Amino acid sequence: MDDRAYPEFSSRYPLLLTTLMKRPVALYPEQIGVVYRHHQTGHYTRLTWRQWHERVCRLANALTGPLGVRPGAPPALGDRVGTMAFNTHRHLELYYAVPGVGATLHAINIRLSPEHVAYTIRHAQDHTLFVDDTALPLLDAIWDKVSDVVRQVVVMSDDPGLPASRIPGLIAYEDLIAAESAEHAWAYLDENTNATLCYTTGTTGLPKGAVFTHRQLYLMALHSLAAQSMSNTPAHSTQERLGENTVPLLNTPLFHAHGWGAPFTSVFCAQKVVLPGTFTVQGFCELVQTEKVTSVGVVPTIAAMLVAYPELHRYDLSSLTRVGVGGGALPLGLKAKLEKLLPSFQVSSGYGMTETAPVAITAFVKKHMVDWGKARVDEMMVKTGIPIPGLEVQVVDESGRPVARDGQSIGEIVMRGPWVTERYYENAEKTAEVWHDGWFHTGDIATVDSEGIIVIADRIKDVIRSGAEMVPTVLLENLIAMADFVLEATVVGVPDPIWGERPLALVQIRQGFDATEADVVDFLVEHGVRTGKITAWMVPRLVALVDQIPRTSVGKFDKKAVRERIDEFVALAREVPPREAADAPAAIRS
Amino acid sequence: MDDRAYPEFSSRYPLLLTTLMKRPVALYPEQIGVVYRHHQTGHYTRLTWRQWHERVCRLANALTGPLGVRPGAPPALGDRVGTMAFNTHRHLELYYAVPGVGATLHAINIRLSPEHVAYTIRHAQDHTLFVDDTALPLLDAIWDKVSDVVRQVVVMSDDPGLPASRIPGLIAYEDLIAAESAEHAWAYLDENTNATLCYTTGTTGLPKGAVFTHRQLYLMALHSLAAQSMSNTPAHSTQERLGENTVPLLNTPLFHAHGWGAPFTSVFCAQKVVLPGTFTVQGFCELVQTEKVTSVGVVPTIAAMLVAYPELHRYDLSSLTRVGVGGGALPLGLKAKLEKLLPSFQVSSGYGMTETAPVAITAFVKKHMVDWGKARVDEMMVKTGIPIPGLEVQVVDESGRPVARDGQSIGEIVMRGPWVTERYYENAEKTAEVWHDGWFHTGDIATVDSEGIIVIADRIKDVIRSGAEMVPTVLLENLIAMADFVLEATVVGVPDPIWGERPLALVQIRQGFDATEADVVDFLVEHGVRTGKITAWMVPRLVALVDQIPRTSVGKFDKKAVRERIDEFVALAREVPPREAADAPAAIRS
Repeated sequence: MDDRAYPEFSSRYPLLLTTLMKRPVALYPEQIGVVYRHHQTGHYTRLTWRQWHERVCRLANALTGPLGVRPGAPPALGDRVGTMAFNTHRHLELYYAVPGVGATLHAINIRLSPEHVAYTIRHAQDHTLFVDDTALPLLDAIWDKVSDVVRQVVVMSDDPGLPASRIPGLIAYEDLIAAESAEHAWAYLDENTNATLCYTTGTTGLPKGAVFTHRQLYLMALHSLAAQSMSNTPAHSTQERLGENTVPLLNTPLFHAHGWGAPFTSVFCAQKVVLPGTFTVQGFCELVQTEKVTSVGVVPTIAAMLVAYPELHRYDLSSLTRVGVGGGALPLGLKAKLEKLLPSFQVSSGYGMTETAPVAITAFVKKHMVDWGKARVDEMMVKTGIPIPGLEVQVVDESGRPVARDGQSIGEIVMRGPWVTERYYENAEKTAEVWHDGWFHTGDIATVDSEGIIVIADRIKDVIRSGAEMVPTVLLENLIAMADFVLEATVVGVPDPIWGERPLALVQIRQGFDATEADVVDFLVEHGVRTGKITAWMVPRLVALVDQIPRTSVGKFDKKAVRERIDEFVALAREVPPREAADAPAAIRS
Repeated sequence: MDDRAYPEFSSRYPLLLTTLMKRPVALYPEQIGVVYRHHQTGHYTRLTWRQWHERVCRLANALTGPLGVRPGAPPALGDRVGTMAFNTHRHLELYYAVPGVGATLHAINIRLSPEHVAYTIRHAQDHTLFVDDTALPLLDAIWDKVSDVVRQVVVMSDDPGLPASRIPGLIAYEDLIAAESAEHAWAYLDENTNATLCYTTGTTGLPKGAVFTHRQLYLMALHSLAAQSMSNTPAHSTQERLGENTVPLLNTPLFHAHGWGAPFTSVFCAQKVVLPGTFTVQGFCELVQTEKVTSVGVVPTIAAMLVAYPELHRYDLSSLTRVGVGGGALPLGLKAKLEKLLPSFQVSSGYGMTETAPVAITAFVKKHMVDWGKARVDEMMVKTGIPIPGLEVQVVDESGRPVARDGQSIGEIVMRGPWVTERYYENAEKTAEVWHDGWFHTGDIATVDSEGIIVIADRIKDVIRSGAEMVPTVLLENLIAMADFVLEATVVGVPDPIWGERPLALVQIRQGFDATEADVVDFLVEHGVRTGKITAWMVPRLVALVDQIPRTSVGKFDKKAVRERIDEFVALAREVPPREAADAPAAIRS
């Protein structure tokens, strides 16, 4: 900073990710800040904030020194540094050191197909890769496709030495950083310096790389904290504050949309950061118990896996109160099942996407709603919710006008705000598809009610067009999941000669329960149609009971895969005819 | 925004004060958002967020329409709009409408001398003035000195019509805004557009005008919220969140350092904003009771006035839990007296100055300190505290190096960060005095301990230099105020032929108590020297019992005024000789 004189510097004091590290190091240097448990060996690593920060400094010195990673000058990106890693202290070190030296962190989604992994490395032109020893076989397998791009590969391991590999010149992470100084003077970069490159999962095509600057990620962290401090939502209003009392388990992979922002907020708050490698239900339970974890974010699948886990009762998970569910709608039934098994849990939903960094909309309970009683408050907590303060969100019709706030009218969610990505890297065409008329178009359709509460109805591409009407599949999925006997359900459209498409429900029955296709339909009629939540013609008459619903690499229902195997599922399905004329689709829709 | 296309706009989405208004209007349009009680008539005004926002829109339209106020193009300021007003809904409307149209709000400190009020209006070149009817006589009195600068004067009143005045062409606020549309499309200004001009109180010379941009004030609000969400401090860790459940009383005048930031955070959080006109102890108590106020910021004097108020027991003040004390050190004794009278209160200290917008340092209790027990936690809560996250603060010696974190070494507090003013308006000389070597120099001296807790020792200009040593007057004042029989105390230096200066204590005895000068000294020896908090030579041997301690316009002890009348106070003082040789200054200091 010494070369940047007053006064220009003062009013534009840069918003940088490295600032987030300064607070825990200054206030809690000798307190354990980062805990990592290897998901295979069960080995624990515990670091004080001082120790962890020294490792970040050593890594920064290695990046700018021997590794030759160069910073960017905005809007140009710096050298891209790719990571192929689970949630470890080393990955968290890379989260700060790489942007800290002005380079770009590309956290590679190692759950993509090997072909797509190779594609993102080539597309990003990753200068250097940091690879977990457990992910090295994947890199080995695609090495021929990326070896001309990647200059060097650093292997991260709890063990000394280097594993066998056909990749030349492997560098051992611990040796690399041990050779460097434990001090690093973090530069006062331009806040618009690029910090990360996050690829989408590419369920509808090739992955696209959303770019984020220091300023954007800093502001996401800050607004997230402000949002939580303003919330009356039961899951947020425990006496627990967000400081050092909070123990977050960073369960969401750091290669998914910045691990939902937790790597930034947790460090800034000096919370004890608990890193599980990758998710296993047993590792999850052990870490919650041993580290007295207080908060976690999970996808609905993981919530369902906890519900299904037979050993759950062996663990004391009572420290865990805040369970945020994102990456898919949270069915009310799943929330109820989880909270029944684990009464300390307060489960609420959130919504975001890679392009929104991702924190965007969270469940919210207004003060007067608290008086509505538990049942209605629970309903509020599974609704998508309200925008994080500072983010502009609208639900608009096809002409771009906001839809009526009636909880019925359906439109697309559009956004703009301080932390929405401004573009896909080297992809002007896809950028123009999502960014136009001054708004980022999410491709998600939703309703908004008179309280301003947004509820996602569907993905535009997943919505079933039956006759002239749209069948909101997410709503159907949530209703089916309310049945005690259901673990999970997904609904897709199948071609129909009359209606164009009609809905097919894939349902996974909960272990220990016995149910038929007709039970599913009866439940929907009883709890959906009779309560006015859906109309009779929306009820899927085609139901397939399955052992497992196909999933994407981020754990969402993979509707694309379902559609690709649609004949197989249709063959498996049973047609459940209406019991009464009033339930018949035609009677209602005519 | 329509003219600002993607992508430049996206990643630099501007941080603007008008954004703060959007949340309450979108989420709570029909909820009472702003309550104003006239401090003389007792008349209440209650506005929903929709109603209040419509008034802000009307005002914005009046500013850009009939009043002809022009926006600035950074770094140039827009037209300055001066306010001479107490804390009313109208003043809060000006807080948003004036910066909202790109002009500069100059909230004039009407407690300054008429000469200094005129000076700030001339120095700021105020284009338009908005004046409370109660402040109009002051403007009348200085009109000749400012009439060539000011183009128009708008009078704000609960009553219709215009009061008598020699100022030509007065405009009635309510008529002005009633004629305008209730809609206003808030512009997406450059975030570096100037928003406010805040003059210092000028206790050491002419007032200086610190400038602040939208970005700076937005970031102050956001970081303040983050700070509170991270705090374990008892006063902050009630179950109360910072959203609509919180009812802040905006007691600090809006013309003092942005009313300590509350006008920004309270609106953003959709808290019910309670405005008292100007402080009266009776009005304060009535508002807390009727509006169920939960939080307030006060200067130590007001805390002392509450302690002294004989009617206090007539009110139910139990809703009030968070009492922040700033604008002067919070004596532990005052905190104890207040909490004894009002057990719901949790009183903690904060520190800032006009130039820091002002939020800068607040009392903080780390998790492990909570186990220390109430007495030590109370001590932590009156210490100045830790920096707001995101702000860089150092305590440095004369060569600019950080002092040892030993709680003993004294240095000057320097700062830099996203919301520290970058300059005084039209005053390069004074700017250069405070901003150099990359830091803003506060002129306050402090210690910092091994936990990182900062404690203000004194103002550089107030410190007493006795022999080769410095006597920290704030420490002495706090110790004296711990005595049950003391209401308040201040300590200044008087010339001494041997020591250069020696300390003189001015003490105001609490009503209903009987105490002598010797009691003050005995108390200091017993609770200061014997406990090791001060050394014997620091004890003032010259004590004057006074009816009232002179104060500045912001309610701080006016040491400049004391020094000007020093002969009078020395004549009033009694010399209290040491009882034992060990207490003698010379014996210790030799």
